[in-house]
Formats: sequence, structure tokens, C-alpha cells
Amino acid sequence: MIASHYVTMLQGKSVIRELSEFATARGKEIGYENVFDFSLGNPSVAVPEEVTRTMIRLLQEKDPMELHGYSPSLGIGSVREAVAESLRERFGIPYQAEDIFMTSGAAGAIAHAVRAVTEPGDEVITFAPCFSEYIPYINGTGAKLKMVPADTETFQIHFDAFEEMLSEKTAAVLINTPNNPSGIVYSRETLQRLAEILLRKAEEYGHEIYLISDEPYREIVFAGVEAPVVSAFYDNTLMCYSFSKSLSLPGERIGYVAVNPACEDAARIVQMCGQISRETGHNCPASLIQLAVAENLNLTADLSVYERNKNLLYRELTESGFTCVEPGGTFYLFPRALEEDAVIFCAKARKYDLILVPGDGFGCPGYFRMACCVETEKVQRSLPVLRRFVEQEYPHR
Amino acid sequence: MIASHYVTMLQGKSVIRELSEFATARGKEIGYENVFDFSLGNPSVAVPEEVTRTMIRLLQEKDPMELHGYSPSLGIGSVREAVAESLRERFGIPYQAEDIFMTSGAAGAIAHAVRAVTEPGDEVITFAPCFSEYIPYINGTGAKLKMVPADTETFQIHFDAFEEMLSEKTAAVLINTPNNPSGIVYSRETLQRLAEILLRKAEEYGHEIYLISDEPYREIVFAGVEAPVVSAFYDNTLMCYSFSKSLSLPGERIGYVAVNPACEDAARIVQMCGQISRETGHNCPASLIQLAVAENLNLTADLSVYERNKNLLYRELTESGFTCVEPGGTFYLFPRALEEDAVIFCAKARKYDLILVPGDGFGCPGYFRMACCVETEKVQRSLPVLRRFVEQEYPHR
Repeated sequence: MIASHYVTMLQGKSVIRELSEFATARGKEIGYENVFDFSLGNPSVAVPEEVTRTMIRLLQEKDPMELHGYSPSLGIGSVREAVAESLRERFGIPYQAEDIFMTSGAAGAIAHAVRAVTEPGDEVITFAPCFSEYIPYINGTGAKLKMVPADTETFQIHFDAFEEMLSEKTAAVLINTPNNPSGIVYSRETLQRLAEILLRKAEEYGHEIYLISDEPYREIVFAGVEAPVVSAFYDNTLMCYSFSKSLSLPGERIGYVAVNPACEDAARIVQMCGQISRETGHNCPASLIQLAVAENLNLTADLSVYERNKNLLYRELTESGFTCVEPGGTFYLFPRALEEDAVIFCAKARKYDLILVPGDGFGCPGYFRMACCVETEKVQRSLPVLRRFVEQEYPHR
Repeated sequence: MIASHYVTMLQGKSVIRELSEFATARGKEIGYENVFDFSLGNPSVAVPEEVTRTMIRLLQEKDPMELHGYSPSLGIGSVREAVAESLRERFGIPYQAEDIFMTSGAAGAIAHAVRAVTEPGDEVITFAPCFSEYIPYINGTGAKLKMVPADTETFQIHFDAFEEMLSEKTAAVLINTPNNPSGIVYSRETLQRLAEILLRKAEEYGHEIYLISDEPYREIVFAGVEAPVVSAFYDNTLMCYSFSKSLSLPGERIGYVAVNPACEDAARIVQMCGQISRETGHNCPASLIQLAVAENLNLTADLSVYERNKNLLYRELTESGFTCVEPGGTFYLFPRALEEDAVIFCAKARKYDLILVPGDGFGCPGYFRMACCVETEKVQRSLPVLRRFVEQEYPHR
């Protein structure tokens, strides 16, 4: 009599978890420093010292009743105000505190945003390649996730396939830029064309289509790359943010939904998020963490290592004959595998202690993901190994 | 096209919130110290200094990558082990780490527990008076909450009404002891009889009936009162705990589900909770907070103030002619109102700046809740006011 749905979910195996377990086990044999584990999207630089100092100061100086007291269900008022102010200053969009809902990271943000703007049975469209967890996140809300196949030439949006997939059932579109796993940043042209289509289709269908914009990698953008802010292109945008990557504190579970103030029903959507929390048991993020990030909104960890690592790997990959669209941000690369089945390709790489993730789970078979959030020194040591792997396994390319 | 269900929920007004807003507004007029605000169940004593020191030490000494890194989806391994060990030592039940699922407070614990052991449409039975948020918590899972009327003589369980309500659709029973709002602790006899009925009915129906035990007030039990641990009476028990009240850190959102190791499918239920998190966006509690409470599991805030306040109020209430079952724990009293309609009674009390909550929202009309988690000095000042209120409004009693 336990819930059959979750029993079934348990039977599904997580490829990334299995790879990570392999890497850990192998690390015990040969030393983890010798396992080139590119499987996990875990920040590899420390939280800024300022954030640590803020937390210690709050603990030492703030009235503990206030510091650890219940947060209002939409988030601490001063924190919501600080987030809105920072977004106003940075993006020139007039966010107010009432447009902000504090969440436990991006997962919480997406779960609330989708529930707020869909009815059970509605469709949410997203674009391959995408974060594999979108599937349980969206389907768990009662909406139905549909995935547009990838434009593998650019990893921007495959607009023809997208237009075909849109229908009256489409309540929302979910995008992720800079993108996990491709590392691609959606261009101004992509966002403009997306907004035009959504406006046109919303009018045709006679109902809004909300744009849910998952932006945890917003601060990891490389030199010379423009990362336009999504909300500026389309009023009905729900921005889902997480501080996990920008401040390197994924375990502290902190992020927000920012509803564009020009969005139909903006303040009401935020209020609805509070009701959604009551039903999911997903109450506010920890109050200490809320207060600490609010004082450090314009700060990031030292994210430069990710660009350095990307450059090293991108050069090696292209010189070794891989096809790879150069990432504009994030800490991922998403090259084409050297044989049709990326699962087999990644299994072969494991023999060289190279842990790569097949693209199948991201809705893009034939490709693989490398998470380059590892020490640069290890990336450097991995380069000759990567070359040897290609030479020995794919000698006739 | 926003979700109609949550729009409807928004229209429901929270009585407690309205009272609390009234108290705040009134406090601005006459000084909050002159408003006898017994509306909110917010701890009124500070977090133990040891917990603050632990947090500061973790921030100063622990590798920030480890401290703030992703927690495994079931909770940090060492934290789950520490919780299991503490439960083993304290209650003599052989909990292991794999029986523990770390949650964002009791709300998260209940949301996961109910989802794990019910199918959509199943019934969950609880007992009036109960925490009003049980209604969205349970109905949000897809199960249906049914409420057994109160036994107002004792606020133990009204067993005849319970037996009538049980049916083949009953998947779980939800109890809360020590109880919000009655302050009553379920006796050994109550728990034994409950377990007997559940065993008998489970056999009759041919399926398990799970007991979900909401225990956030477990550490607030008064002198001479025995608070038997629920799990010891019934194998299929999911204990839902929160540190909010015992450690006075409700804003930090930390608790757990502990599945009795003798429970049918114990380890699998915990694993399922991890899957439920994927669908609700309710990921782990903050890692810093997990690690800090794990080092202070045998500690509580100075909870003695609640008993002192209860004694003062209980004496005054009974001397003023109220009927009140004496609380055995928590920081609530739940007397009978002096007229049939407790909403009118509480509205009259507001004229004396006494903020009381009508029992209607707790499924028990005609009664009212006083949360005595306020400064003892304020409780003392409230006593003559309470007396004047009764004398002036109910002179002929």
C-alpha cells in the first residue's frame, strides 16, 4: 500500500549517480586525484569569504529570536526587497519586493513557477538538450513536459520543431540559459524570436503562455559573450534563480522566483507561490541563509576557473577531432561522441578513468557532457589521457 | 490561465494571520508590550548558545566546499547516522541511518510521509482538535483528510467516532502528541488502544494502515507527565519531527522523518521520500543547519518558561470559571469559550487587547487557543486583564 508511483520512480536508475558512484569507488582504488571525474555539476571554488563573514556576524550580533524566527511564507521582507533592488539596478526592470518569492534553490523555484501557471494536464515545452531533472520536476506538478529536439548545429532553439509542438494546451515554456548541458548562451536573436512566437501564439490561443526562465548559471558567462536577460524580452516571464553556482553554496538551498512586474497577475502569482508551499511542504529557505545572501547579492565566487578549464578542454577536444559548439558560459562542454552511441563511448572512456556523461539523459543522444568544475591542475593532467583514449579507441578517425 | 486551485486558496483567509496583523497594528498604537498577543505558536526563548557556537565553528573551521556542498537527497550521511543513534539511545528502538530522511521542518516531513504511504484518493484520518494546516498539507498530496470529532472531556481520542470513520480507503492515520492546540499528551492507554484498532483493521482490510506521528512538541512535556514514544506502540509508524520548537529555530527549517525499522518497507519508504522531493522541488534542508543540529541532538532551548506560563494561565483561567483540560506539554492552552460561538468570544476579548484564537480552525468550535510562548512578565500582566474581560463581558456567569 505504499505509493506505487514513487516505487516505480525508484526503479529508474540515475546515470549520473551511477557514474559518480563508479568514480568514488575507483578513487578508493587508485586515489581520487587520478580519476578524471567530469560527471558532477558541483561548484569547485569556495564560497566568497564575505559570505562566511556575514553569516558569522549575523550569528554573533543579531537577536537570535529574529535571526532564527519564522520567515514569512513568501520570504523575509527585507530579503525580497534587497533582491528586487539588485535586479532593478542590474537589469533596469522595475521589480518590487512583492514580485519576489524566496525558494530552496532552482528546483524549488521551478516547482513553484510551474504549479502557479499551469492547470493539471497542461503542457510545458522545453528544449533539448536540457537538465534531466526537468522531467520529474515538471511531471510532478501535474503538467506534462514536452521536449523540442536539439538544434545540434548551434544548441540555440530549433524553432521549426518548436512551432510544431506549440498548441492550445501549451501553458508555459521552460528555457535554461546559459544552458546545462550545452554551455550555450541564448543570443538576443534567439530570445527575440522566441518572444515573438510566444506573443503571436498567445494571441492565437486566447491565453497567456508563460516563460519560465531557469537561470542558475547567469553569472558564469565567458569573455566576449553577451548574456541578455530573458525577462527584458517577454513580459510574462518568471525568472528562476539559484545562488548555488554563483556563490558556491548548493547545499544551502537558496534561490528565488522573480515575476516580471509587467507580467499578467505578477503579484498574485507570487502570493500563489505561498499557497503552493503549503501543499508541497516546501516552506521557506533557511532564514540565516536568506539574510546572508541578501547582504551579498552583487558578489560571486571566483568563477574564472571555469573559463580557464573550458578553454583547456575545448582546445584539446577540437584538436583531437571532436565536434563541439564552444560554450559561452556554465561549467559544461557538450561535444559529439566519436561513435553513434554515446553510452558505449562513455563506457569506453571509463577504462581510461575519464568519467563522461552520455547525452541521452539530456534528451540529446550521440553527445556527451563534461562538467569542468574540477581543479585546473586535474584538467591539465586529463588532457594527455583524453588524447590517448581517442588514439587507442578510435585510431582510424 | 494561472492555476485556479491556488487562486481559490488565496481567497481563504487565515484567521491566525488576521489576528496577528491586528496585534501588530494595535501594537503600533499602544506599544506591542501592551498587546496580550496569545495568537502565534512562535518559540519565545532563544536558541541554545551551543548551537550558535557550533554554527560559527563550522563556518570558521570546516572546508567550505564540504560545508556548503550538495547534500545527498536523503540528507547528509553523518547527520542521518547521528539522528538514528540519538533515537536508538533515547527510545531503545533500533533506528539506523537508512531509516532517516532529513526534511525542511515538520511541514516537509508530513508532506513526504503522506505522499509515501498513500495513493491519490486514499483517506488519511486525523483527530480534532488539530493544527489547521493539516488540511492543505494532506489534501495537497492527493489524499483526502478526514477529521474525527474531539473528545472534549479529555482531548484524548474519541475512539467510537474513529472506528466509525475507518474504512478500506484509510491508508494512514495522522496524530499529533503533545498536541497543538490542546496541549494534551496522548496517554499510554490511548496509544495502546489506537495501535490495537489499527492492527485489527489492517488485518480486516488486508492492507497496512500507516501511523504518521507529528511530534514537534516532543521535548515540551511538563513535570509529572509521561509522554510515551508513539513508535514503540505500532511498527508501521512514520515519526515526523521538527527542531523548530525544541531548539527555537523555526526559520531554519529542519526536521526529519524517522521510519520505524520494524515498519513494512522501512528503507524503501525513505528512498521514496527522495523521489518525492524531486517532484515537489522540496530538496534537502540547508547543509550548515543539518550539520549544526546533528552536533546538538541532545540539547534543547530553556523550555521551562512554557510550563511556568502554562501554570499561571491555567490557574487564572480555572479560577475565572473557565473549563480547561490541563495541558501536559506544548505551549498551548485550549479552554472552552464563555459563550457558544468562540469567534464572537475572541472578538470581544480583542477589545481588552487579548488576542485569542477561536477553535473553529482547529476543528473544535466553542473552544479557543492561547499560545503562551510569550514573556512570563507579560503573562503576569495579562492575568488581571483576563479577569476584567470576564467580569465585564460575562458578569452573570
